[in-house]
Amino acid sequence: MEARARGVHHVGIAVADLDEAVATYTSLFGAEVELRATVAEQGLEAVGLRLGEGRVELLSPLADDSPVGKFLAKRGPGMHHVAYEVDDIRAALAELKAGGVELVDEEPRHGVFGHEIAFLHPDAVHGVLTEVVAGG
Amino acid sequence: MEARARGVHHVGIAVADLDEAVATYTSLFGAEVELRATVAEQGLEAVGLRLGEGRVELLSPLADDSPVGKFLAKRGPGMHHVAYEVDDIRAALAELKAGGVELVDEEPRHGVFGHEIAFLHPDAVHGVLTEVVAGG
Repeated sequence: MEARARGVHHVGIAVADLDEAVATYTSLFGAEVELRATVAEQGLEAVGLRLGEGRVELLSPLADDSPVGKFLAKRGPGMHHVAYEVDDIRAALAELKAGGVELVDEEPRHGVFGHEIAFLHPDAVHGVLTEVVAGG
Repeated sequence: MEARARGVHHVGIAVADLDEAVATYTSLFGAEVELRATVAEQGLEAVGLRLGEGRVELLSPLADDSPVGKFLAKRGPGMHHVAYEVDDIRAALAELKAGGVELVDEEPRHGVFGHEIAFLHPDAVHGVLTEVVAGG
């Protein structure tokens, strides 16, 4: 199976205040900021944290009517998505599509931090917004 | 800092139908069932999945008025908690408590699969129900 996950690449978390959240993860868990980026066309600012071998991606909205802004308005701050690393993202997407899985992104695109990524529709994964990330 | 995370131990996901969810994670991502347990006093059944180097913990309620049953009724199926592995869970909890963090479990207890674990209150971590797990 080409969509076989190598592991959890990161957990995506929606927050209202990015700097406060970075401070919390740093003080509670010794997180280190690896990446920070503003993605105007998605209306969000993101921070990539390392927590030991793991990664957390904090997402905050630039506007209330952005996707993350709407998520916060509806559900409040909290877990937003989970991302699995795969060996070959094109093969993974072809395999998933052939299996009838509803994809948000039928082709890989560049994620917040430049990786090749694609999202699966949460309805395909029991309500979990799920991302696949091309392995390095 | 004693609460320094070694990495993401697992992502906890609430599901309505455990067997269907296991089948989905197996077929989509090549997940393998590592552990399965029923915890009557918490009113849940759980499956521990390996996805490559990563882990997902699927949780399903045994009754509607159990904690996971109430979660499903309120929020629907989806991401439930994130767990970080720490070197010394007692030291981590002492450090967090000294820092004013609200803990659900002030002392480590045995988690669904026997690990020593403790939960932090989601209000302490920007809405994310967060678990620490004793490192192996």
